[in-house]
Order: sequence, then C-alpha cells, then structure tokens
Amino acid sequence: MSLLITQVTVTPIAFPDPPLLNVAGVHQPWALRTIVEVRTDAGVVGIGESYGDQPHLDLMNRAAAGLVGLDAFDLNGLRARVAEAVGAEDTPAGTGLIGASSNQKTIARVVSPFEVACLDAQGLALERPVSDLLGGRVRDRVSFSAYLFYKWAAHPGAEPDEWGPALDPAGIVAQARQMIDAYGFESIKLKGGVFEPDAEIAAIRALREEFGDHPLRLDPNCGWTPATSIRVAEETTGLLEYLEDPTPGIDGMSEVAQSASMPLATNMCVVAFDHIAEAVAKRAVGVILSDHHYWGGLRASAELAAICRTFGIGLSMHSNTHLGISLAAMTHLAAATPNLEYALDTHTPWQGGVDVVTDPLTFRNGALDVPTTPGLGVTLDRDGLERMHRDYLDCGIRSRDDTGYMRQFEPGFTRRTASW
Amino acid sequence: MSLLITQVTVTPIAFPDPPLLNVAGVHQPWALRTIVEVRTDAGVVGIGESYGDQPHLDLMNRAAAGLVGLDAFDLNGLRARVAEAVGAEDTPAGTGLIGASSNQKTIARVVSPFEVACLDAQGLALERPVSDLLGGRVRDRVSFSAYLFYKWAAHPGAEPDEWGPALDPAGIVAQARQMIDAYGFESIKLKGGVFEPDAEIAAIRALREEFGDHPLRLDPNCGWTPATSIRVAEETTGLLEYLEDPTPGIDGMSEVAQSASMPLATNMCVVAFDHIAEAVAKRAVGVILSDHHYWGGLRASAELAAICRTFGIGLSMHSNTHLGISLAAMTHLAAATPNLEYALDTHTPWQGGVDVVTDPLTFRNGALDVPTTPGLGVTLDRDGLERMHRDYLDCGIRSRDDTGYMRQFEPGFTRRTASW
Repeated sequence: MSLLITQVTVTPIAFPDPPLLNVAGVHQPWALRTIVEVRTDAGVVGIGESYGDQPHLDLMNRAAAGLVGLDAFDLNGLRARVAEAVGAEDTPAGTGLIGASSNQKTIARVVSPFEVACLDAQGLALERPVSDLLGGRVRDRVSFSAYLFYKWAAHPGAEPDEWGPALDPAGIVAQARQMIDAYGFESIKLKGGVFEPDAEIAAIRALREEFGDHPLRLDPNCGWTPATSIRVAEETTGLLEYLEDPTPGIDGMSEVAQSASMPLATNMCVVAFDHIAEAVAKRAVGVILSDHHYWGGLRASAELAAICRTFGIGLSMHSNTHLGISLAAMTHLAAATPNLEYALDTHTPWQGGVDVVTDPLTFRNGALDVPTTPGLGVTLDRDGLERMHRDYLDCGIRSRDDTGYMRQFEPGFTRRTASW
Repeated sequence: MSLLITQVTVTPIAFPDPPLLNVAGVHQPWALRTIVEVRTDAGVVGIGESYGDQPHLDLMNRAAAGLVGLDAFDLNGLRARVAEAVGAEDTPAGTGLIGASSNQKTIARVVSPFEVACLDAQGLALERPVSDLLGGRVRDRVSFSAYLFYKWAAHPGAEPDEWGPALDPAGIVAQARQMIDAYGFESIKLKGGVFEPDAEIAAIRALREEFGDHPLRLDPNCGWTPATSIRVAEETTGLLEYLEDPTPGIDGMSEVAQSASMPLATNMCVVAFDHIAEAVAKRAVGVILSDHHYWGGLRASAELAAICRTFGIGLSMHSNTHLGISLAAMTHLAAATPNLEYALDTHTPWQGGVDVVTDPLTFRNGALDVPTTPGLGVTLDRDGLERMHRDYLDCGIRSRDDTGYMRQFEPGFTRRTASW
C-alpha cells in the first residue's frame, strides 16, 4: 500500500472565544487555531489541528514545505524532516502557559498536527480507527471534566454570552450547574489564579457543597508561591482529586509536594521529555497532564503514558482551546491508553457549538463514544474552514495575548505568576 | 479492513546447539523454541517465535486458546486476553538467566510471540514492513555483535562442531577471528562467568590486542561479587564499551557503578518495567539490553526505548538462542528505534545455518539489511517446522537446564552466581 504525501495545506483560522479569566489575563474575542491537511497518493486526506500563533504558524508552514514525498507511515521520518525545517529555532509557539521555550519543545509542537494527520490518513487508507493504530482501544467511552472559568459576562462592548458572569463562588457554582446539566460531566476543574487564594478556596468549598460526589481540581497556573501553595493544600485537604500547578518550577512543586496531601498535577513544569528525570528525582509531581499538541503527537503521548505507568505517576490530559479535530485525536489517544486514570480536560463547551468538522463528537453523560469509523472519525467542514479562515484574516489577532488584551481594560495588569 | 484471528497454532521445536559455556553450566545438545502462527480472516498468517520451555509452552497454549476472534490490530486486547489466560501464574518460563519470576514478567513473555505474529499479520495485510508499524525505519541496516562463548570442542560423545574448543584467550581470539571473517561483526561480546575473572580479563586483553578498534563487551552473567566486579572494572578500564551484569541485583550493580569507568549494562537486574524506577533512583545501570521476548513484544520494547532516551540510559539488545523469525523481529524493532546506540547481540552464528524460515536474513559486514517487504519479511518453512517439531518430540528435553546437563560431566557443579 502506497501512502505518500502529495500535498500539505496549512490554514490558520479564528473563532469566537468568551472572556475567560486566567493568571495571564483574559481570553481575547477570537481564538486562533491552525488546520493541516495531508493529501496522499492513496486519495485519502488526513487532518490535524494545532495552535494558531504566528511564530508557530510560520514554523508549520516551513515544515509543510518539506513533507511532500514523505511516506505517511514514516513518523520517525516526519520528525526528522520537521527537525530539519525548524533547525535550531526555539521560538516559543506563543501559548504562554507551558513554560520556557526549547528546540525540543518547538519540534514536538510542529510535529504534532502532521503526525495526527498522518495517522488519520493511515486509518482512512486501512479503514481502521486511529485508536487501532495506537494499540487498540481499552475503553469504548472516554470521560471528560467540566472545565470552569472565572469570566466576565461579556467581552467589553459586546452582548453577554450564554454563560453569564462568574466572579465569585455563587457564579462558579451556577456555571458548573449549567455545564453539568448540558454535558453530564463528573469531574470538575476550576481554573484559578484569578482571585486571591482564599476566594478560590471558597469557590472549591461551594462546589463541594453543591456537588457532593464530583471529583474536584483547582488549577491556578502557578499563581502562588510555594508557601501559599502549601497553605492552600492544607485548607483543601480532602476536597481535591489533584491540585494542578500551584507554583512555578520543579523545585517549587517539589517543595509543595512534600507536605500536600493530594497529588500535585502539572502541565507547566513537566512539558517535555527533558523535564521528566528531574521531576521524578525530586518527586515533584503525582500526575502529568499529557497534551499531544506539545508532547509531539499521539505516539509520543503514548510514550509519556508508558513512562508515567513505569514511574507510578498518574496521567490526565490537558486542554488548550481547541476544535473537533483535536477532540477526536484526544479521544482516540485516551481510548488506547490503559493507564489514563482521570477525566480529560476540554474547552469544547466554551466554543458555542462552533466547529471545523461537520460531525463533531458529542458528549453524553460527560463522556464521548470512541469513534470506530476509519481514521479520526471526523470530517473537515470545508465551507466552515474557509469562513473561519476569513475570520482569521479579518480579526487582526496573530498571536494569543491574554495579558495585552486585559491591559486594554486594566492598564496596570501584569501576569500573576507566583504573585500570591 | 477486517483482520480477525481465526486460528492460532503453537508448535514447539528443537534444533542442535553447540556446547556453549556460561555461569549456569553448558548448553544442551538441543535448544528449544516455540513457533506461533496466527491465521486471520484476511487470509494472511502472522508468525512469532519464543522460548520452548515446558511451563512457558503450557502458558502459550493456554493463551492461544483464547485468541480466536481477537482483532489482530487490538494489541491492548491481546495483552488483556493473555493476562486473563495466565491468571495469577508466575511460573518462571525457564530460561533461568533473567532474574526472579513475577506475574508481570510471565504475561510479558507470553504476549510477545503473539504480538509479533499480529504485527506480522498487520504488515502482510497492509503490504507494509513491520518497521513501518513501529513508526518507520530510521536506518536501513542494523549492526550486530560477535557473540563469543567459551566452549568445548564438542558435546561429550559427539563429533566436534565447526567452531572447535575455546577455553583460553587464544581459543577466544581464534573464535572471534573465525566469526568476524564469516560475518564481519564490529563489536565483540564475550560471555564470561565461566573461568576465574583474571582468565577472562586476559581474554579481553587478547581480543584488544588482536582487534584494535573493535568495541568489546564482557558479560559474566552475575558471576562476581561487587568487590570482584569493581576490581575487574578497574583492570578493564579503557577496554570495554560496557561491562554487562557483573554482579546480581540492582543494589550490587549500583555499588559497582559508583566506581566503574565504563557503563554497566544489564539484561538481568532490569528485565521488567517494575524494575526501572529503582534502577534509575540508584543509578545502577548505564545501558539496558532490551529483548522483545520478555519485555512484552515490539511495542513494549519501543516504550522501553523511550524510557531509556528520557532518562539518559543507553540501549542495546539482548539475544537468547533464537531462529530467523526473532532475528527479523529484532531487526525491525532496531530499525525503528532512534536511540539504539549499540550493535545487537545475536546467537545466529551458533545455529549452523539451521532455521525455521526459508529466507533468513543474511549478514553482510556485520549488519542486516532491514527487510522492506510486507510483514516481518521472512517466510515460515513448513517442512522445516515439522522436522524440527519431530526433533522436539524425539530429543527428550522439555525445559532448558544448562546446570543439569553440566552435572552429567561434573557432578558437583553449581551455578556460579556471585561465586568469584
């Protein structure tokens, strides 16, 4: 079976995003993503999805130019060609939330959408779901969490969105109720790092009061010092399934982990294979949130899972703002990963039904059925892609900048890393 | 594409083996292996190879009975079915050289030949080499080492074999010359643990004298105490690319590693995923010799490779007495493993051209061309299989017992673990 890449298309898109608050500021009115299409001589076209920030987009375009002629089965060759195209480049791809840049991380991020597209193409050609190419699904359904955000009622000057404001415990509980009623999620994750820690502890207590049995998580995105993190961990003992990235760095996390009663989770201090050995040696993290977008694709994420299993580290899955191609990829990966113990994060409820696929996976009781159709099991909406690409061209945003956007309304705002 | 398993055949075989000496005694006149065939509804038949010892054979037969109906793409499902068939069984499979038994290890060993056969079947059905199913080959040729053994000229009462005796440095050098002339190997590995350490150091020095540039390895199979190991490491400084399993256990290896100038390699103290974390924490090993036969197959071995890469541990490959199916599987795995830095071990030269495939891979300049034909790229010799199965039935050996065989000639012999 021949499966040579004949053409690669890279299309940046934009879609509306609500004013979600985090340690860096607030989500801009438009979120950016990039859609890649990999055409093959077998006639099938694989699709992938990644970040849309300009430096990363430039690198994806540079890499795409070198992929024609590559065998879509040759994923080691894909990495080599991407590495060659990227060169010594270590420009951060701009998402801003997952630590310092490095060449290894840059290559991993650029590889990812093309790897997903190659696996999609393989699956389409073989008439096999992608989960089969990852060793076969160990579960038929994949559970996700309710991902709560403090938020404004609306972007300044715009109409209120469907969610309304959430700026205190009552607002967070109302948001959780709305999301759980609509999607059926069990686990609940609160994005913190927005208000001072006691306010966020109060929100967690209010969630526990309202949702007695739902596992809870709190993620202040490194908003706290180690001392504050230790105090919050004490005060939330018995309330959290894990505490995510309370403080920056492996050393800081290690200090907190020594006294915290719950596992510490991370998608900020361990975000590349280079970080794992130190984190293990310093017992810094109990749970790693994998994310195929920056770990280098689905197969690399499966390797991360094997490492977690081997070293007794729990495994969960991180979400950045995404659309239906990434949701399908995450679902296939989760389905084929035996030691994924936690419900996955997803931003899907925040996208208001907007998608770039015609047949997005749909939640039932907080989970997705793993697709059993060939490839990823989702189909690119070409009209939607074109429309969203025009929105990209028109929206004027070229790199995500939560901090800059916040400063339009709060001029003195600075990112709150370790600020409490 | 449907690829359901319709029939599984498990056939124990025997073939002549020369009187190779090791820490446990001496190879018996017949070596045992088991060949598995996995038939599918696509018409293709995948093949795999494993140990032939009775307890392991019993477990493979028990597992085989549960595999009909399994999708040959569902390798996670394969492991689950094997685990169910094996149950809590932790009977050692009898090779005797890779540490204590455990349920995890037993399952991994039973999974392996079926996983290789499923990958072969996948490759045959897709018309793709197995290396493509492992991420694509990163090298077109895979290098192997000259695997030297102290040996008798012949099994007692039999005619001398083509290799003659090797019981001192001159004999080892002659054997190396004969093997390198025939196969072109670069790296040279001496199986030690047979004579007192100074004699084996002398053999290494003689090899260095004769083969100035060839990387050398010495493997006494845990024949030494930590103190002796430290002394041998001192005396062989500058001579060895690695010293393999000088002493038993992770603690012993860790003690030796603190002073040894060369990396310590192992296929005895780290032989399952459960062992890795402790070995990393204690800095016990610098090189792990992978072996798909007991790590759980080719994909599990790829996971081991990712762990080695992540923790800065070197990767080489172990060989147990094997035939051409395993040689092909090892070659595909090595081809798709970027961080395999060392030449692989193989027993092929010791098998006198006997094989169970009609088209064995052939060495040229110490390396094999990676097959690019579908599946493993080797074809089962059904007449040979039947003949070798009759030899199995006739030879009377049901489990490998190097120590028992040695005692026929040296009644007081005991295994020499940590005896020097």
